[in-house]
Amino acid sequence: METTTNTDRTAHTTPSAGAAPVAREDELRQVDAYWRAANYLSVGQIYLMDNPLLTEPLRVEHVKPRLLGHWGTTPGLNLVLAHLNRVINARGAEVLYVLGPGHGGPAALATAWLDGTYGEVYPAVGQDLDGMRTLFRQFSFPGGVPSHVAPETPGSIHEGGELGYALTHAYGAAFDNPDLVVACVIGDGEAETGPLAASWHANKVLDPVRDGAVLPILHLNGYKIANPAVLARVPESELVDLLRGYGHDPLFVSGDDPAVVHRRMAEVMDTAFDRIGEIQRAAREDGARRRPRWPVVVLRTPKGWTGPHVVDGVPVEGTWRAHQVPLHQVREDPEHLAMLESWMRGYRPEELFDATGRPRELVTALAPRGTARMSASPHANGGLLLRDLRLPDFRDFAVDVPEPAVGRSEPTRVLGGWLREVMRANQDNFRLFGPDETASNRLDAVFEVTDRAWTAAVLPTDEHLSPDGRVVEVLSEHLCQGWLEGYLLTGRHGLFNCYEAFIHIIDAMFNQHAKWLKVARQLPWRRPIASLNYLLTSHVWRQDHNGFSHQDPGFLDHVVNKKAEVVRVYLPPDANTLLSTVDHCLRSRDYVNVVVAGKQPTLNLFPMPQAIRHCTRGAGILEWASGDQGREPDVVLACAGDVPTLEVLAAAAILREELPELAVRVVNVVDLMRLQPPTEHPHGMTDAEFDALFTVDRPVIFAFHGYPWLIHRLAYRRHGHPNLHVRGYKEEGTTTTPFDMVMLNDLDRFRLVVDAIDRVPGLPGRAAHLRQRMLDERLRCRAYTREHGEDPSDIRDWRWPHAAGVPAEPSA
Amino acid sequence: METTTNTDRTAHTTPSAGAAPVAREDELRQVDAYWRAANYLSVGQIYLMDNPLLTEPLRVEHVKPRLLGHWGTTPGLNLVLAHLNRVINARGAEVLYVLGPGHGGPAALATAWLDGTYGEVYPAVGQDLDGMRTLFRQFSFPGGVPSHVAPETPGSIHEGGELGYALTHAYGAAFDNPDLVVACVIGDGEAETGPLAASWHANKVLDPVRDGAVLPILHLNGYKIANPAVLARVPESELVDLLRGYGHDPLFVSGDDPAVVHRRMAEVMDTAFDRIGEIQRAAREDGARRRPRWPVVVLRTPKGWTGPHVVDGVPVEGTWRAHQVPLHQVREDPEHLAMLESWMRGYRPEELFDATGRPRELVTALAPRGTARMSASPHANGGLLLRDLRLPDFRDFAVDVPEPAVGRSEPTRVLGGWLREVMRANQDNFRLFGPDETASNRLDAVFEVTDRAWTAAVLPTDEHLSPDGRVVEVLSEHLCQGWLEGYLLTGRHGLFNCYEAFIHIIDAMFNQHAKWLKVARQLPWRRPIASLNYLLTSHVWRQDHNGFSHQDPGFLDHVVNKKAEVVRVYLPPDANTLLSTVDHCLRSRDYVNVVVAGKQPTLNLFPMPQAIRHCTRGAGILEWASGDQGREPDVVLACAGDVPTLEVLAAAAILREELPELAVRVVNVVDLMRLQPPTEHPHGMTDAEFDALFTVDRPVIFAFHGYPWLIHRLAYRRHGHPNLHVRGYKEEGTTTTPFDMVMLNDLDRFRLVVDAIDRVPGLPGRAAHLRQRMLDERLRCRAYTREHGEDPSDIRDWRWPHAAGVPAEPSA
Repeated sequence: METTTNTDRTAHTTPSAGAAPVAREDELRQVDAYWRAANYLSVGQIYLMDNPLLTEPLRVEHVKPRLLGHWGTTPGLNLVLAHLNRVINARGAEVLYVLGPGHGGPAALATAWLDGTYGEVYPAVGQDLDGMRTLFRQFSFPGGVPSHVAPETPGSIHEGGELGYALTHAYGAAFDNPDLVVACVIGDGEAETGPLAASWHANKVLDPVRDGAVLPILHLNGYKIANPAVLARVPESELVDLLRGYGHDPLFVSGDDPAVVHRRMAEVMDTAFDRIGEIQRAAREDGARRRPRWPVVVLRTPKGWTGPHVVDGVPVEGTWRAHQVPLHQVREDPEHLAMLESWMRGYRPEELFDATGRPRELVTALAPRGTARMSASPHANGGLLLRDLRLPDFRDFAVDVPEPAVGRSEPTRVLGGWLREVMRANQDNFRLFGPDETASNRLDAVFEVTDRAWTAAVLPTDEHLSPDGRVVEVLSEHLCQGWLEGYLLTGRHGLFNCYEAFIHIIDAMFNQHAKWLKVARQLPWRRPIASLNYLLTSHVWRQDHNGFSHQDPGFLDHVVNKKAEVVRVYLPPDANTLLSTVDHCLRSRDYVNVVVAGKQPTLNLFPMPQAIRHCTRGAGILEWASGDQGREPDVVLACAGDVPTLEVLAAAAILREELPELAVRVVNVVDLMRLQPPTEHPHGMTDAEFDALFTVDRPVIFAFHGYPWLIHRLAYRRHGHPNLHVRGYKEEGTTTTPFDMVMLNDLDRFRLVVDAIDRVPGLPGRAAHLRQRMLDERLRCRAYTREHGEDPSDIRDWRWPHAAGVPAEPSA
Repeated sequence: METTTNTDRTAHTTPSAGAAPVAREDELRQVDAYWRAANYLSVGQIYLMDNPLLTEPLRVEHVKPRLLGHWGTTPGLNLVLAHLNRVINARGAEVLYVLGPGHGGPAALATAWLDGTYGEVYPAVGQDLDGMRTLFRQFSFPGGVPSHVAPETPGSIHEGGELGYALTHAYGAAFDNPDLVVACVIGDGEAETGPLAASWHANKVLDPVRDGAVLPILHLNGYKIANPAVLARVPESELVDLLRGYGHDPLFVSGDDPAVVHRRMAEVMDTAFDRIGEIQRAAREDGARRRPRWPVVVLRTPKGWTGPHVVDGVPVEGTWRAHQVPLHQVREDPEHLAMLESWMRGYRPEELFDATGRPRELVTALAPRGTARMSASPHANGGLLLRDLRLPDFRDFAVDVPEPAVGRSEPTRVLGGWLREVMRANQDNFRLFGPDETASNRLDAVFEVTDRAWTAAVLPTDEHLSPDGRVVEVLSEHLCQGWLEGYLLTGRHGLFNCYEAFIHIIDAMFNQHAKWLKVARQLPWRRPIASLNYLLTSHVWRQDHNGFSHQDPGFLDHVVNKKAEVVRVYLPPDANTLLSTVDHCLRSRDYVNVVVAGKQPTLNLFPMPQAIRHCTRGAGILEWASGDQGREPDVVLACAGDVPTLEVLAAAAILREELPELAVRVVNVVDLMRLQPPTEHPHGMTDAEFDALFTVDRPVIFAFHGYPWLIHRLAYRRHGHPNLHVRGYKEEGTTTTPFDMVMLNDLDRFRLVVDAIDRVPGLPGRAAHLRQRMLDERLRCRAYTREHGEDPSDIRDWRWPHAAGVPAEPSA
């Protein structure tokens, strides 16, 4: 094995390892002022449309009619952000935040406004009275910004909403960013989710030399929505055990007296950054190779801290009632209105802002400068840092195809050879992620140039494990997806390889990323990032090991529901088209690319030049397989996916042999989105193109990798749609052989021939005999597999019989 | 609050709390014999088609041509099952197993065959030579049984395949089963998944009085697929911390010498069952209320234990190479064939089976009797234990509807009143699950009769928490889904309430359950179980708090991909239809029912008798809203979902007012599956029914809750499909008001009127003026919301203008 070399691995500075400064009183005064200012701005965002500085007594018409937002988590987030600013200033640390309690959007917006970033990105929302009014008014207001952290928020790579992914995003951001500390706030509600619970162990794949650090900050404010949170209600000794069990060293900050909490928080943050610095120094300078015990901060503060204590006779601060809007009836109840006013005035805005709305020096002194501001971090707008990959010429990895559909290759194994060179050439900005399936998916050539990332114990019998491995594998699709998202959003490249059967696990995560891309594309200041690339292999048609229980090709349906401008679906039918497709995907930006390709030996169909042409075209006639040259086709056999393509070719061979008077056209679709009209998807064919390929009036038998509905859905507006007959995955089959599986789903060559016979009018009488023979062939194959446990050899070894040099024999 | 009373809560026996017997030598000899027999049978299943007892020398033709199965985990599972048998015999314990490493199917099959259950369920696979041959041959063989634990496996409630759900299934099975111990094996690969990592904390919702016990057995054999597993490679002290942090007390068994491991395993199992017994006794007899520290067993044995040590010069036993089939080339390589034979003979089959293939007394002595056998546990065939719910008459909870579409109710709040009585009447076999959203979803009336299950710390300000609460809430959709599945599969009833936005989190889990049901329905011995009921509320059309980032109605698309016989989708448009629908769902068996209904105030449309008729019919004409009585309709306005129904009614009102010469028919669909042909779904309408409702040639404007494609997909074979124009969810809208959201998706009343005008030929000239006025109305509404932050009052408060006693005014 060639080893990964990282030529400057000892040259990384350890920016967080300055001398541990003790927080001075004036620093803490600044922190407190910044915190109060952020709290003031947060309450203002939730409640006010006007009178932002309370320059006049608060009146009903200053208050928004619909009060939407989450106060509960916000003061804690504001505290964390203020203290991070102090650390950045004191140490010159480079910090990216990830706010798990992302519905605390007011906090991220408040800090971006206070540190000046917001006004730079959105000039109409600058540091003046008008800007403050707009900041308040736009929040969760029609046409404004969401109530949670979102792509619109400068400094964010993590959208609020669905919980669970904060820590995996943080680790993804830290990979290959040796100078970065990712401060990740985890709410106690989020801590109950599965993906978050698994994410703690990501420290077993983090290299203290080449990667940055993640500082988890577990924010225990006691409640999720209406219930107490588990981690807030276990004894502290149990929580310590748990965090130590995750491999962390916990540091606790608890309290409800701001002065006490500020002092303790400053102390704990200094300790945490000191330890991070020392861990990195020891690894980078002394070559320490033992897995370190990274710090974690546990922050216990009241939910809705500094908000109303008691409302209408019931306690609010410190309870679940503070989760969203502590005062509900501000426009209806004068007492609530008065409470809101005194709540806001309690932050002493006059100390924090001058009469023009500009934050005073006491506040702005804490804001770092330039890109040191977390809101302005280029890592949070990864496109700024994105560099093109150095991609080796994939044509050099082509398999030789002297005749189509005669030789076989394992497409993913061929791809693996090219990916090895991609990894070799891009040692600091490309990673491969997968749930321990990279070898099973036959991409193991990559292990010739790199290893699996691993900082836990290694045994002599282990292979390909090292702290700086660039293949990241853990048995959690959630973590793989989250790491890749975090890695891409901070300006790098990657590929997620996964069994098709298990990709539904991350349906919801895909949703959020696709929506992020959709919104980010509309923001001129967000620069394009590398696409999120899925390679789905070990697919549903070859369930040799894995039972029917978890087969489902429906991820494609799920993906196609998303905005057309961000999704692409490819089904390359052989090794060379797979190479061409993945090369294209790795060059693309701002998409989600889904590539489905098998790992089992598959007929080679396209010499490389034709493969490139076919992929560029996205769909085309296989001339060599079609018998309609010079005549109008009587039937079109279409296919998308490797197994369907094999069956269609075999069906075409039978038809050409047995019914030579029938003009058969074979069409293969690589780029599924070509089937849609151009009004629906940018890749969509015009009707003229579609009609030229599929005809407008001839029967089209379409053999498809996924659920048949999807083809109808994509093509239902086409002229020829009434003649379209789709065979696809039908949820049939348990334990079986490859061809039996195909037969159980009625996608086999014999059934396709029957379909053609049934749909073409005016066939000669012997077509009826052929039809019956085809059904007999199915019974023969079924009986053979039941008896012998494998498919008949004429099926298993089938190849195109009409090739030059290959005698044309009856194919079945 | 009325408190839950469980009249016999101190009467539960504590069956596992017998005197701690010390395992005798003869018991351990039995255990070892049973284990060897199970290992022998496991290897046989993976490899052999014939010569099951090795009565003749092993030849190539005895070996299966395709070697598919997982050996690595199997000997460990066999060990656990053998030792559980000892405990069952020694203590009379009632034990259900859940095997997380479910691809170790050979183990579950071997034990079922050895304890006699298999032959009882499948008489052709009994305890004789023919039966053994069939047991071997059928395994992962065409037409046979899957290689993983599956519905076909007696004793199983947990399908192998996708990992992560073992422990949540185990807890679901333990709820309300005070006498049951659920022994749950967790593989070290599975332990890396998110859902499993979160599941450890389920001990915070387990009541030691009313619930049974879960005994997790963490099986560390060192590797997942090709990689070491995290928990196998952290220091033992860290693992102890982790398990204690989860609230458990770990007991370790490690080794590779069978005699040593047997002794230690017996000792540890006795300790674990003793502790469980003592915890239950203390809670049940002494009233101990502190959360106990439940035992967990950590079992460290080599992967592929007792299999080939070295194959082709590389170590196999104890490495990842033992994951699947340790000997690959048995038919090709005589040395491999010889190794297989000596491996199998190493178990000394002659000691274990007599010449007829029957297990000898040494082996069978360990098998418990009757339903004490884990393979024969009625809990694993829950339909045997299922009792009908006592359902209060939902008609008593109907809202009064003197005029349709005039008054408003919050449908889920109305449902909550009925659910309260369902819970009151079914205190031991019905539970409500949800990710801390039960109150937010306005089902909080249930807290008048029960609490949330909670055994962690409680503060004075908390409400509705108690160890025996019947509402189970944690912020993990995975856990809610898994608990409900485990609860249903063991013969009880339940409902999962969830925000529609977040239900995609469990897409993959739904898949497996739907497939389980599909297969189970084909097994005559598996009795029907209660349906899995989803109530999706806080739906995508009212994203008031939650941003666009995670809105997606596509769970319906996902569900409809599954086998029609097991899925049902309902969109009741008002409170009374919701009551009728959920009553129906709770009475049904073996389905997945998805009910989508809003929680916001919604127009009441149906008095209860009509609601029942409408739901029974599944789709129908709203006569009072239609103006086509006595004439052919010129246009059909169809709707499914509460918000679309509101907009269709408002559009119908406008059309009837403004273009009275136009005959408008309003059709509402509650049961979405009615749209399919009866050949596709048992609820499907005939073409005659469909044509009668929707016509064959008139334009149909269909306003739909979800993605519009779904309606096309369901109806594309209908005569009227070319005239069908669907408006649905389009991925638009960020921060907005309810009506603005509808407008952004082109589903609003004004757009629907325009759609109708655009599609009906021959309208009078003033239709063009109306068309323009409709577009102006949209602009008016848009401008109003942008200015005022809420919808205009005529939109917000709209009601049906043509009701008796309500003056008919222009509706817009």
